[in-house]
Amino acid sequence: MVAGPAASTAATKPMSTDDPHVDLPDDATLEAEVRALALAARQASRALAIAPTAVKNAALERIADGLEASLPALLEANAKDLRAAEAAGLAPAMIDRLRLDEARVRATAEGVRAIVKLRDPVGAVANLRTLPNGLKVERVRVPLGVIAIVYESRPNVTIDAAALCIKSGNAVLLRGGKEAFFSNAALATIVADALEAAGLPRAAVSTLGTTDRRATLALIRQAGLVDVVIPRGGEGLIRFVSEHARVPVIQHYKGVCHVYVAEDAELKMALEIVKNAKTQRPGVCNALETLLVDHVMAEDFLPRLAAAMPEVELRGCDVTCALVDRAIPATEADWDAEYLDLILAVRVVRDMDEALEHIARHGSHHTEAIVTRDPAKGARFTREVDASLVLVNASTRFNDGFQLGLGAEMGISTSKLHAYGPMGLEELCTLKWVAHGEGQIRT
Amino acid sequence: MVAGPAASTAATKPMSTDDPHVDLPDDATLEAEVRALALAARQASRALAIAPTAVKNAALERIADGLEASLPALLEANAKDLRAAEAAGLAPAMIDRLRLDEARVRATAEGVRAIVKLRDPVGAVANLRTLPNGLKVERVRVPLGVIAIVYESRPNVTIDAAALCIKSGNAVLLRGGKEAFFSNAALATIVADALEAAGLPRAAVSTLGTTDRRATLALIRQAGLVDVVIPRGGEGLIRFVSEHARVPVIQHYKGVCHVYVAEDAELKMALEIVKNAKTQRPGVCNALETLLVDHVMAEDFLPRLAAAMPEVELRGCDVTCALVDRAIPATEADWDAEYLDLILAVRVVRDMDEALEHIARHGSHHTEAIVTRDPAKGARFTREVDASLVLVNASTRFNDGFQLGLGAEMGISTSKLHAYGPMGLEELCTLKWVAHGEGQIRT
Repeated sequence: MVAGPAASTAATKPMSTDDPHVDLPDDATLEAEVRALALAARQASRALAIAPTAVKNAALERIADGLEASLPALLEANAKDLRAAEAAGLAPAMIDRLRLDEARVRATAEGVRAIVKLRDPVGAVANLRTLPNGLKVERVRVPLGVIAIVYESRPNVTIDAAALCIKSGNAVLLRGGKEAFFSNAALATIVADALEAAGLPRAAVSTLGTTDRRATLALIRQAGLVDVVIPRGGEGLIRFVSEHARVPVIQHYKGVCHVYVAEDAELKMALEIVKNAKTQRPGVCNALETLLVDHVMAEDFLPRLAAAMPEVELRGCDVTCALVDRAIPATEADWDAEYLDLILAVRVVRDMDEALEHIARHGSHHTEAIVTRDPAKGARFTREVDASLVLVNASTRFNDGFQLGLGAEMGISTSKLHAYGPMGLEELCTLKWVAHGEGQIRT
Repeated sequence: MVAGPAASTAATKPMSTDDPHVDLPDDATLEAEVRALALAARQASRALAIAPTAVKNAALERIADGLEASLPALLEANAKDLRAAEAAGLAPAMIDRLRLDEARVRATAEGVRAIVKLRDPVGAVANLRTLPNGLKVERVRVPLGVIAIVYESRPNVTIDAAALCIKSGNAVLLRGGKEAFFSNAALATIVADALEAAGLPRAAVSTLGTTDRRATLALIRQAGLVDVVIPRGGEGLIRFVSEHARVPVIQHYKGVCHVYVAEDAELKMALEIVKNAKTQRPGVCNALETLLVDHVMAEDFLPRLAAAMPEVELRGCDVTCALVDRAIPATEADWDAEYLDLILAVRVVRDMDEALEHIARHGSHHTEAIVTRDPAKGARFTREVDASLVLVNASTRFNDGFQLGLGAEMGISTSKLHAYGPMGLEELCTLKWVAHGEGQIRT
């Protein structure tokens, strides 16, 4: 007997469950549950879309208050997750991301209060014009509808995402990480209570009661009920969602960010920018990963840089290795690596053409910077580099919703569709057309 | 011997070929060819993105001139397609869509010249601001990059799409319909010659040399090379692309459009709007499909409407059938039907709540209209209806890029992500962030 491809079996096999005491539901039950959740969210989204600013803000204030009032219960739920994570042997960095403490909860509550102060993006009118036939046409900013967010361990994303979606008038379906199961459930209850107290439907913010992969699959295939899915986490998660979704995905992919030190760069400025971009917080997507140095600058610049960042491992091209003793030879894979660590790939380039070629080939459309004294070089770099943020004489670390003045963000999109760069409240909306006539017909 | 699931075999089976004299390439060859085409388009997109307006306009002028100069060759190529279509027994409506004649070619050339006159969307700056740290932040409109368009029989889409993409600085990969194979090849040559003459890369506009479904699949899976795919055609095509794409899709789905005649509507205006929306061009997506009439108006309105549109078949609810002799009972399926024909579904509703419920349930987010004398009713309708265009006292037929003042359009998006409604030149672009500093670092 010859066995056929086993793909369909693999796809429907239960892959994870959260509470070991609960029996695994069958596929049809799980899909029906997710669909019911999505239907309830769709229904709730109609109320959210027309909710006045004051009502949405009242819900947000209650969330912030609720977080502070429920501190002991939150820490208790979080402790359960932490014990399970330790028992499972999770890496200390992961456990740290999972941890809630009083300071973190209070900071999260303050973050929600900051969102209260932001301008409501819904309803603003753009492009008002009267057509020759007298039809008055405007574009009105409206919520996207129902947003699904699939994310990993950090429980504060639960609150950040819920608050941004409420303020922008969207319903949201949250699928958090398995590790944060109890923390997220406790946070979700605070949010639902706050919505209800403010007169909004509890279903406007829902969490999947499971991280079973079949449920995630069902969630990201609810075309017609879910308007967009935003995956937040590692490359594997984003790839999984992108490949299996049947609803639009806004990707927040990796950042392979470059700084190009041009031939005329101010040496001290270049040193500070590179050092800041690489070391100020190496584990984030807007940190520097590959340095490109014009060959004219290399001899002066690279030894000083190596001395200024002794904690950073350098992986260089031949010229770099000749100039810096401690540099080790880079392999082809280094040019595409997102280290998220104290490692820097370094390449000496002939000129800006070669730098632009390198970035076009290896960049991830996230953040790219040039250091130069020449405005014409800066203009060429910003024009020709295709990335969500292109900087002249500043650190890549500024690609962030707060830093760029959005007040808050849902993440940094490297998709060009809809949002490119930090997604704030406006990017959680779309523009619909509205036209007012007096009986106009088409002839 | 028990056979396993045969999915992988089915997916790789050749499904169509265009030229019967050419041997079918194997999968790997076909995929490599599509990838090479996409790579060339990606490379060309960098030149297009920074091409000055005058250069892009020169290419467009040459396309328009080339269409007129090549008229005999075009008609000859088209005649080959028409003969094949007739031999294959295509429906007369399909054959008409496929046909080129001198008037159509001249109209297409004029359409290209109209795009020359439109403002270049690339480079416009929005949101310029200086942050507290002195960083100057702006958002610059840039092309999406490489756009893939998968469409059906009408060969004029080849030119419209190419012209819009060139003007907006995008490279484009065109996969036209099998029926228009020779016409599209002739049109593509005119475009490539025009690009070259204007000093732009020929690869900026490429056509797949085949409509083999495997090639289409390869095209819509070129993540990293293709930025977006826009399917234009019937529901089956759009569903196929949406389900198999690995790059973002902007859907131009069906239009199940409603007119709601409110209790206070001006009767004559309502009659004219409904008649225009249903009959002025019934085969298009912004034509009316379901009429909702407030019960207060029904007795007065429906018999007059039936008399005013004797050519339209009416499928009504019970009340409608009681008021209009010739109405036949509607089934549940009628409320979701896009007839694209002289058929109208009619339902009498209790009030605006019921109309809004009906539209939320059966509408396709395309175009919805209300007829009312009361501005408050109009405001509620425009606020609560989720559609790309919501009209008060005007025909649904206005949902069109030309009618709404965009000058030209790529289609009407019913996706809420990125573009909702007619896609003009600006919607073929995205906004990137640009920041100018004097050495700012993050602390």
